[in-house]
Amino acid sequence: MDLVRRIDGDTGEFLLFSLTPPRAATAQERVQQIAEATIARLRLLELDGLILYDIDDEASRNPAERPFPFSPTLDPADYLENHFTSWPTPVIIYRAVGKYSPSELRTWLAAQDPARVLSVLVGAASSKVRGMTSLAQAHALRRAANPELSVGGVAIPERHSRRDDEHLRLLAKQDEGCRFFVTQVVYDVNAAKNLVSDYHYECAARGRTPAPIVFTFAVCGSMRTLDFLRWLGVDVPRWIENDLRHAADTLEASSQLAITTATELMTYCRTLGVPFGINVESVSIRREEIEASVRLAEQLRTEIRD
Amino acid sequence: MDLVRRIDGDTGEFLLFSLTPPRAATAQERVQQIAEATIARLRLLELDGLILYDIDDEASRNPAERPFPFSPTLDPADYLENHFTSWPTPVIIYRAVGKYSPSELRTWLAAQDPARVLSVLVGAASSKVRGMTSLAQAHALRRAANPELSVGGVAIPERHSRRDDEHLRLLAKQDEGCRFFVTQVVYDVNAAKNLVSDYHYECAARGRTPAPIVFTFAVCGSMRTLDFLRWLGVDVPRWIENDLRHAADTLEASSQLAITTATELMTYCRTLGVPFGINVESVSIRREEIEASVRLAEQLRTEIRD
Repeated sequence: MDLVRRIDGDTGEFLLFSLTPPRAATAQERVQQIAEATIARLRLLELDGLILYDIDDEASRNPAERPFPFSPTLDPADYLENHFTSWPTPVIIYRAVGKYSPSELRTWLAAQDPARVLSVLVGAASSKVRGMTSLAQAHALRRAANPELSVGGVAIPERHSRRDDEHLRLLAKQDEGCRFFVTQVVYDVNAAKNLVSDYHYECAARGRTPAPIVFTFAVCGSMRTLDFLRWLGVDVPRWIENDLRHAADTLEASSQLAITTATELMTYCRTLGVPFGINVESVSIRREEIEASVRLAEQLRTEIRD
Repeated sequence: MDLVRRIDGDTGEFLLFSLTPPRAATAQERVQQIAEATIARLRLLELDGLILYDIDDEASRNPAERPFPFSPTLDPADYLENHFTSWPTPVIIYRAVGKYSPSELRTWLAAQDPARVLSVLVGAASSKVRGMTSLAQAHALRRAANPELSVGGVAIPERHSRRDDEHLRLLAKQDEGCRFFVTQVVYDVNAAKNLVSDYHYECAARGRTPAPIVFTFAVCGSMRTLDFLRWLGVDVPRWIENDLRHAADTLEASSQLAITTATELMTYCRTLGVPFGINVESVSIRREEIEASVRLAEQLRTEIRD
């Protein structure tokens, strides 16, 4: 079954892989090489879809110093159009909507083929930042410009831990047209279960159908990667940090943790009847971590039901 | 192997059952009936030990109204001496030390047979309350009056979630003579794992041997019992509260949750090499909940290694 039908039929049970396009400064020829290597690596995974992130300099998100310096990356829509034409599944293009003017966004949205492209619309990382287009505007543009285009939103369990209202935000985003949600990297399984649970019972109380929630997992090969995830707002429980810090093989330990967490969440969602997808994010550009991400996706594939 | 040896040999893997003595106002004859019924019910469980709580009016702990009214209970040491003489295993007597004068406490401590009685010394529930004897004084009295008597302390994962220093408190209590620790009821597995993890790595860094941590579990037959646990300071994750609230059979659902949580913690402790015990607390006085507690202990018995 195709990704769009798995989302719209609310069956869930799909596997995505996500990555960030190469740096904008990369030579054109090298970009093509990277794309081809990526396609070769991912083709055997039987993915239901691919996610391409739209990176914003999220300095506004966090006053602490960024663990890795920010460098602009290629536009994910351009990367798809120019270098990923041979990729076989639908692709979910992230859009940090504040980076684009309403007319740029409308043009792009209108041009997308709903059978081949989906989009996740992302608002500003902080309420202090005003972008060129607000999230509400972007949703209105999408509804007008391309009603068939499947759009999703971000779901942030960490925000639910602090404010207890993320499930209400998800329902409000559904009213705007969101047909699925994608989390950041999940390390805190309880935070994710709390969100799923509140969302499930709120949907039941309102007689609404829950939209699929895509849980994101990532391997972590070093404490520096862990610091970066934390800087991005991922809650990492103390015991996980300790175990990774003392592991003989951090990468392997983090893969095992991801499998355990993913399996627990999948079981929980199936019990409640909340549809879900699984997304493996390739966070680091180190070859070792990329290969471990591919292996993680391979292992999680076996946990997903056809 | 006997409980004292399991504690001192740091092998852990023991099962306790804990209860509160009957109300002080109970007729003497009825107290004996209750004790006999309890002994009959628990005798088949192959327990390694029994815990008798010492209840203090913990109004200082929490400004919110107590969900169940406080009524004084029999002194656990008297209850043991007068009504539990036929009980076959060692018994751990809690002592809310602030309730007793130093000389009362010294006399009691000196009179205990270390092969038959252990004690958990508990300080004030709030730093605003000054009892007749402080925890530090109580430990000093124990060391002087009965050096062989095995004493433990409380371990509070919830405090670790807020202050990140509970592992250091455990080590300080070990310096005072504590040979084991007992938690409150555990519903938040991550909080417990965080404490175990920090404790383990701190012990390793200092070259200290970790003392057994006894994790307490309880069934919960109603939202009122859950409210009471919460009032006592137990962190109940949102998803667990939701699932219990919507369960067709709250008691059964809470038992399954306890088994899952206990099993996860046992596996985690074994991986790190932190010795542990399991304690099933009988929280409610409703027959149905008492019987479910006994069944929970029976099921957890099968998870403990000889």
